[in-house]
Amino acid sequence: MNGAAAPPPDADMAFNLDRWSAVRLECVERSLSKWVVADAPAGLGDAMRYAVLDGGKRLRPLLVLAACEAVGGLGEAALRAACATELIHAYSLVHDDMPCMDNDVLRRGKPTVHVKFGQAQALLAGDALQALAFELLVPDDDAVPAGVQAALCRLLARSAGHAGMAGGQAIDLASVGQSLTQAQLFEMHKLKTGALLEASVMMGAACGSASGAELSGLQAYGSAMGLAFQVVDDILDVTADSATLGKTAGKDAAQAKPTYVSLLGLDRSRAYAQKLLAQSLRALDASGLRDTRALQSLAMMVVNRDN
Amino acid sequence: MNGAAAPPPDADMAFNLDRWSAVRLECVERSLSKWVVADAPAGLGDAMRYAVLDGGKRLRPLLVLAACEAVGGLGEAALRAACATELIHAYSLVHDDMPCMDNDVLRRGKPTVHVKFGQAQALLAGDALQALAFELLVPDDDAVPAGVQAALCRLLARSAGHAGMAGGQAIDLASVGQSLTQAQLFEMHKLKTGALLEASVMMGAACGSASGAELSGLQAYGSAMGLAFQVVDDILDVTADSATLGKTAGKDAAQAKPTYVSLLGLDRSRAYAQKLLAQSLRALDASGLRDTRALQSLAMMVVNRDN
Repeated sequence: MNGAAAPPPDADMAFNLDRWSAVRLECVERSLSKWVVADAPAGLGDAMRYAVLDGGKRLRPLLVLAACEAVGGLGEAALRAACATELIHAYSLVHDDMPCMDNDVLRRGKPTVHVKFGQAQALLAGDALQALAFELLVPDDDAVPAGVQAALCRLLARSAGHAGMAGGQAIDLASVGQSLTQAQLFEMHKLKTGALLEASVMMGAACGSASGAELSGLQAYGSAMGLAFQVVDDILDVTADSATLGKTAGKDAAQAKPTYVSLLGLDRSRAYAQKLLAQSLRALDASGLRDTRALQSLAMMVVNRDN
Repeated sequence: MNGAAAPPPDADMAFNLDRWSAVRLECVERSLSKWVVADAPAGLGDAMRYAVLDGGKRLRPLLVLAACEAVGGLGEAALRAACATELIHAYSLVHDDMPCMDNDVLRRGKPTVHVKFGQAQALLAGDALQALAFELLVPDDDAVPAGVQAALCRLLARSAGHAGMAGGQAIDLASVGQSLTQAQLFEMHKLKTGALLEASVMMGAACGSASGAELSGLQAYGSAMGLAFQVVDDILDVTADSATLGKTAGKDAAQAKPTYVSLLGLDRSRAYAQKLLAQSLRALDASGLRDTRALQSLAMMVVNRDN
């Protein structure tokens, strides 16, 4: 009676995000290293690998894998989709950091790609990473059914293009020094960051056969979580230092970019992030999906992270 | 007996490339104008449309459509593929013209995209055009079977990425001021220009169900014609003026870029182009395809063009 308390009966069942992620991240890293080949011509492979490997939280791949597992989908398809979302994210950072865009020299604690390899190679590496993302989705074998291949391409293309990430960056570009309403800021981030995060969830779902209710639940989850991600990014830009972030802190204010913090202030931004988190968790509950613990934990990680 | 000579008996059957092209180009232009939407956010749509509409020979779309017709393929798929190849081509020109690459101010007789819209918008417009190319290939309806959608994405992604166009541009970049062997020059152009031209032919073929012999014939045709295209480009850079070309002439020599003309001289380059033309026509003959007149005429146009 006086010994150590017995563990609660379902301790074995407790979900540990770190443990869940570790196994999957190892697989994602190994696959990225295999698929982003070093032998692309004239140093292009080196620049591509530098942009992709050894860095990043790999949030998008983890979302793909978590959503795929929630719907009991096909692992081979999900692994390809996971890597594809990361390649799109990586290419967008390479181009975004270039002098004609954000002109940033530090990313993930290392010199940015154009600082290391020159602007022309950075431009090409980004272009080639985007093409490779789509190439990964359409393997020339029977491991992934053609219908899934096409669905994955559709989700990725829409979320990366003019009605998604690239469109959001265009708004971002045009908004420097402007004051935006919350609705305009919302629209910008929905496209710039939210579209690819939401697409990551939906690509995971496309690797299985989810019901309509499950798909709507996942979409609502992805949408709220994606927006929360950006609100927290805005908060961290103000509250964290460059060493913790692995990128230049305070850059939004320096560039006079409208952010949630500049619009709402710090406290209301934090409250908004928590509200979005609750919203994303409720959407999972309502989806009827059996096991959404990984998705839940990822949303909590997104909101409570410190970098 | 003294009247006008009667037309030869098969005059009605004579193939007229201009007439054949006119109908198809009208359809391609209309589709591009529909699919490259003006309402992409913050001026992005304007930059994308400027980069794509009202200009260019549309060689790649015509190759897609001609190959599709040769194999009796699906028109809806081919039209999407045709526009997708043109979007990839257009995006590559936008990025290639940027100051960190070729730094060119004139394209198709107009200011280049970054001159007109700024570098950041040009970068984003190129990125968004690449995404849109893939989006066009995967419509969310039953008009194009999923297997064809996936095959088209596969061909396009490979030809655009590190083992195709982007890889060739990396070699190009690294070769400025270097002397290349003919084998190295061949490799550069096979990737930089040849891969997408060959892919255009194979994407047309993927819209139907070609036999193995037909596919090899089309591939050999595409490969020889693609290389011929670049040899002629090198010749025209020396012999034509900027007004005829619609882009800056003499730029290879000015940038000390290795070309077929700098390697072989003008006469041997011309002979080489004719040899490649003959090779591409023989490949069509050997393919066993019934009607390859459009493909033949396009290869002749590629070699005998003056801009």
